[in-house]
Amino acid sequence: MRAATRPENGHQSRLLGLLRDGGPRSRAELGDLVHMSRSKVAVELDRLTELGLIRNAGLAASRGGRRSGIVCLDPSLRFVGIDIGATSVGVAVTDGELQVLGRLLEPCDVRRGPEAVLGLALSLVAKMRDQGLLPEVHGVGLGIPGPVSFREGVPVVPPIMPGWDRYPVRETLGHELGCPVQVDNDVNIMAVGERHAGSARSVDDFLFVKIGTGIGCGIVVNGGVYRGASGSAGDIGHIRVAADGPTCACGNTGCLEAFFGGAALTRDATAAAESGASPHLAARLAESGEVRVEDVAQAMMAGDATAMRLVRAGGRRVGQVLASLVSFFNPGLIVLGGSVPGLLGHPLLAEIRSVVYRQSLPLATGNLPIVLSELRDTAGIIGATRVISDHVFSAP
Amino acid sequence: MRAATRPENGHQSRLLGLLRDGGPRSRAELGDLVHMSRSKVAVELDRLTELGLIRNAGLAASRGGRRSGIVCLDPSLRFVGIDIGATSVGVAVTDGELQVLGRLLEPCDVRRGPEAVLGLALSLVAKMRDQGLLPEVHGVGLGIPGPVSFREGVPVVPPIMPGWDRYPVRETLGHELGCPVQVDNDVNIMAVGERHAGSARSVDDFLFVKIGTGIGCGIVVNGGVYRGASGSAGDIGHIRVAADGPTCACGNTGCLEAFFGGAALTRDATAAAESGASPHLAARLAESGEVRVEDVAQAMMAGDATAMRLVRAGGRRVGQVLASLVSFFNPGLIVLGGSVPGLLGHPLLAEIRSVVYRQSLPLATGNLPIVLSELRDTAGIIGATRVISDHVFSAP
Repeated sequence: MRAATRPENGHQSRLLGLLRDGGPRSRAELGDLVHMSRSKVAVELDRLTELGLIRNAGLAASRGGRRSGIVCLDPSLRFVGIDIGATSVGVAVTDGELQVLGRLLEPCDVRRGPEAVLGLALSLVAKMRDQGLLPEVHGVGLGIPGPVSFREGVPVVPPIMPGWDRYPVRETLGHELGCPVQVDNDVNIMAVGERHAGSARSVDDFLFVKIGTGIGCGIVVNGGVYRGASGSAGDIGHIRVAADGPTCACGNTGCLEAFFGGAALTRDATAAAESGASPHLAARLAESGEVRVEDVAQAMMAGDATAMRLVRAGGRRVGQVLASLVSFFNPGLIVLGGSVPGLLGHPLLAEIRSVVYRQSLPLATGNLPIVLSELRDTAGIIGATRVISDHVFSAP
Repeated sequence: MRAATRPENGHQSRLLGLLRDGGPRSRAELGDLVHMSRSKVAVELDRLTELGLIRNAGLAASRGGRRSGIVCLDPSLRFVGIDIGATSVGVAVTDGELQVLGRLLEPCDVRRGPEAVLGLALSLVAKMRDQGLLPEVHGVGLGIPGPVSFREGVPVVPPIMPGWDRYPVRETLGHELGCPVQVDNDVNIMAVGERHAGSARSVDDFLFVKIGTGIGCGIVVNGGVYRGASGSAGDIGHIRVAADGPTCACGNTGCLEAFFGGAALTRDATAAAESGASPHLAARLAESGEVRVEDVAQAMMAGDATAMRLVRAGGRRVGQVLASLVSFFNPGLIVLGGSVPGLLGHPLLAEIRSVVYRQSLPLATGNLPIVLSELRDTAGIIGATRVISDHVFSAP
């Protein structure tokens, strides 16, 4: 593996971005898109060919004169996206156009610490190399479930990741793999993924709300991730929604996350199973010894009133918080992602929508779609490869 | 009056911005600041002199070689800032460095409609021209108390401004005064003012919270105003803080603004005066027939427990909303402005601070000053002249 070659100027960066996002194009088309003359664009494309970043791919149909040559990103380009979750590590390999060529997922508790978890990620990368998917690596993007100093590439006081505080994640991986690495918070990475290839494609100002074990929010402003003054922007799981309530992992009471999210929902569903309030959930508990979010989803589909009540109550809490954020931030779109909306789907979405549309002013909700993630569990790895490709395709 | 002359390129824009924000400078200093050679900077400065935007102002002390000429903005440059409030119209004239040369304020109910209110503003401008303060007008910035389409220069469904919806404010004033005009929401304009010359100087990500008759928020991201998808970002007065409560002007119940702000506070203070709960306020009501925010401030200073209770309860409500926004947005600074914090001062600030610091996570509050506006009632007019000067000093 070798350090990725990078373009030399802004024109070359734009050409690479166009080829990544739109696929192969003729030299004439590219010249039109970047407003450059055919001869000037030829100089930059020739240089990108020399750098091994693009190659020729035949001739386009004639537009009247000489047929223009088609170029595409070099087929040997490879990006790696790593998605570290609370309980799993996912690794994907893409080509230069960010098409996924292969993917591996292993269960892994993030609390095992950075050496064990990053070691597993590296072994998954090695496995893909052995499968021939990775002749070389041009860059790695990585998402972790906690606050990150994006500039330094290190986690910052991540609440559910003991042992990771300020661990040199970017440096460690960059050293091991010999290529550029970018590290960001998992929710920011998923927001980038949805903007690249999912529900938020082409939307400049939107919120990506992840409801997994906990709840977080990716904020996109003018097409870029907004991280806040100390990198903790979007930490909506600890917004207080009631004067009291269950104690949160953060130690406070009344946090949104303590009322809803995967952890709170399985807690409440287990209680409903134990008390006999829900026969469906009680049966699941008896069978498997636990109640998961999947079980709540199945019970709800089967008409279980208690499961439906839990989902509606959670949707109302999330909706209340989002209604405030809509008044404040006036987004153009809200995307709901993470495992909980993925499993509970439209009944949860409907409850959230109804609260937001009722509680926010018409000017802010008049043209505000609230939708489920399209990419589902690939948002993170797509976003991670998009983040690193933006870096590799920028002029140093 | 005549259409303002504008610079021809980005270098000239940057030079004008430096002279506006830093005052007169030598040609050598300016060259260093914009990283241009002495001969190249001389070309641009000569052109700005020809355009009448700058002039020579003597010689600087020697830095070793030939003494460098000092330049300054042309002393005849004039910007006008207009601050339309719910109950007043303020007009200020500044020079090119945005130093206020004169200021007029007239009571005026914004509900009288755009023709009457803009007519009054124009008559105040004419008065300043008669006083010799306005040899010519190079541009006008204007703030109005409602949502604005900044691009079109028109109000959009402003709740407290009947008759103003989509009224061509920018076009009307531009036609009357023959110069560029920019229109924005009053709170955004105040945020710009605080960033130019007040508490938020040099801060890139902050919130400006205005508590006047109602409550609104200016959001600054990367040094620029964030307006949201439909221009309504920052409309925090209608965030729901309780399931029920007093009916709001917007028709909903439970809005922040229905609990606190100038209108809600005078309503509650009047009730306290009428019920006899507060002897101080009862005395004010008997004397003047009304209770104003000033009276609540005086009663509080005099130790009136009811007045103190009202201010604390209001501060708690505002603090709850700001705590959520701090978790979400992770600002680097919060500035409290408008008439209510101006009159109630530190007791209100202390209550707000205590709630925000208690309810938000340490990572977001660790380095988060919450301060009162420095500019107080000039934030709007300073911001308005800053907005228009940015426009006039940009290359078309």
